[in-house]
Amino acid sequence: MTSFYDKLKFDANGLIPAIIQDQNTKRVLMMAWMNRASLEKTLETGKTHFWSRSRQKFWMKGESSGHTQTVKDISFDCDGDTLLIQVEQIGAACHEGYQSCFFRSVQDRGNDFKITEPQLLRPDQIYPKN
Amino acid sequence: MTSFYDKLKFDANGLIPAIIQDQNTKRVLMMAWMNRASLEKTLETGKTHFWSRSRQKFWMKGESSGHTQTVKDISFDCDGDTLLIQVEQIGAACHEGYQSCFFRSVQDRGNDFKITEPQLLRPDQIYPKN
Repeated sequence: MTSFYDKLKFDANGLIPAIIQDQNTKRVLMMAWMNRASLEKTLETGKTHFWSRSRQKFWMKGESSGHTQTVKDISFDCDGDTLLIQVEQIGAACHEGYQSCFFRSVQDRGNDFKITEPQLLRPDQIYPKN
Repeated sequence: MTSFYDKLKFDANGLIPAIIQDQNTKRVLMMAWMNRASLEKTLETGKTHFWSRSRQKFWMKGESSGHTQTVKDISFDCDGDTLLIQVEQIGAACHEGYQSCFFRSVQDRGNDFKITEPQLLRPDQIYPKN
């Protein structure tokens, strides 16, 4: 029996990108980075955990917003350097209140862009100040 | 008018990851890296172009296999550091002959994995030796 960890290539910083896709709608929700510890925690708990490069911090998706992701499937690519994780998403995946972080599309050959989906919540509704 | 390039953050190597999704089936096909030149070429030609980190080479997807990708939509995430590109895929996206590069899924809490889709072609059928 071969562990799937043996097939993975973490980068020089010990990280691997994880694409998060809604299992039902097939919408790609976000991409974030995992280290080995956050991947193990994701497998152990069934909730997505990541490594924040900007904050240098381990985090569970939804820990402050409540917008957690329940893992349904974890796949990995031919090179073993990217993960694709199917989830059941509670609420909006994006911290800006959109279902998906990919809420803007390019227009006019790159000279412009437009917002392509409704904003479900304002950020201050997701992260209320106490 | 704001160019969407102004919203993008290329990494220290001048690269940005691009998630490639089949517009019709919504299957995530692959992830590859673009530099500014390959993104401009993608917009200009309507076919995906990437930067190979291992070969340090500019390449068009399908240039040797014929399995090109016609761009239908380019979106970018809230942080501006990841692209999501909807395509019409000719043939198998994966160089190993699978429709998607994500053809293996984790089993048994990470202790095992299984192949989840049929191999459409053998690699030697995609890249014949002359």
